[in-house]
Amino acid sequence: MAPKYKLTYFNARGRAEPARLLFVAADVEFEDVRVTFEEWPALKETTPMGGLPTLEVDGVTLCQSLAIARFVARDVGLAGKSNLEQAQADMYVDEINEVLPKMGGLMFITDEAVKAEKMKELDEMIVTKYSKLEKLIGSTGYMVGNRILWCDLVFFNIAFNVENYKPGTLENYPKLAKVVENVKLNSRIAAYLAGRPETPF
Amino acid sequence: MAPKYKLTYFNARGRAEPARLLFVAADVEFEDVRVTFEEWPALKETTPMGGLPTLEVDGVTLCQSLAIARFVARDVGLAGKSNLEQAQADMYVDEINEVLPKMGGLMFITDEAVKAEKMKELDEMIVTKYSKLEKLIGSTGYMVGNRILWCDLVFFNIAFNVENYKPGTLENYPKLAKVVENVKLNSRIAAYLAGRPETPF
Repeated sequence: MAPKYKLTYFNARGRAEPARLLFVAADVEFEDVRVTFEEWPALKETTPMGGLPTLEVDGVTLCQSLAIARFVARDVGLAGKSNLEQAQADMYVDEINEVLPKMGGLMFITDEAVKAEKMKELDEMIVTKYSKLEKLIGSTGYMVGNRILWCDLVFFNIAFNVENYKPGTLENYPKLAKVVENVKLNSRIAAYLAGRPETPF
Repeated sequence: MAPKYKLTYFNARGRAEPARLLFVAADVEFEDVRVTFEEWPALKETTPMGGLPTLEVDGVTLCQSLAIARFVARDVGLAGKSNLEQAQADMYVDEINEVLPKMGGLMFITDEAVKAEKMKELDEMIVTKYSKLEKLIGSTGYMVGNRILWCDLVFFNIAFNVENYKPGTLENYPKLAKVVENVKLNSRIAAYLAGRPETPF
């Protein structure tokens, strides 16, 4: 039987990787469609909101990356067991996710002085957000409760980019480092990470 | 008995109003704490993420406005009846919510040429997003399904600001206008709107 879920994105981790990691962690089959930049203009017209990722499921096409990831998290049982746990996961996701546009924006800046200024802002944002999260999360090695939820996977994905940008950042945040470690220790995730396409972002 | 929910924000609609509208629509009592700008610096230190709104419930303090509103929506039964409905509500919320920082940013721009440029960007964003949503939502007068959900209230709140900024914008979007109309027609919301504090944003 064909997979129930069809996830479409570019050949990048970016905003689709949390959904991919969720399917992997829950051992749920999905179609991982990676479109080329050449294919994109023609495809763009057919997407509901003119952007990727999209997730086709039950005849409906969802968009907006966090809406997709949260939907998958609920569908595979990794959204949090109570309404309060779900809200805590949501708030950690929203807090850390603000790093993404700041980081992505750097790619398009050619003026070196502007770039240096924006990098300084990004550095400060990372310290502020990591410090807040380190203070707020428990000591279980998971952001909420005592098992992997989608917020851990969203954090892992961003921390992966932050480590590429500034290696060693996590060293100052032992509780966050443990979250990342626990994600990597998950045997399904580990197998996926060993084989996933290497992409710059 | 004291209300179970304590919502803290400034004396403004802003990022707390969707949660307030949810409590009102569901006829659920809540404590609506509005702090002054003079009180804020001392309070700031005590908030989990250094920002408002916060929602205190069951001994936990939640933050991040959308995480709060989504939590309340689920608690009062206005998040959507299926996982798919919830995801559709989420994606409409994320899409329209991107207008807020663009609109809020205008307040702090003093250079007239820069301001004109940013207003042009905002105008284009509003047309793009309203057009997308008008195309995507059904003709029921609600964004998802056939009754008010939290996405309708989030949209209503932003559309209220957009109408203040550019009166008549909704006239070009009959389905969206019907959503706003249906929110206003809700008797509890109507009573609340008649009595809520008048604030600039």
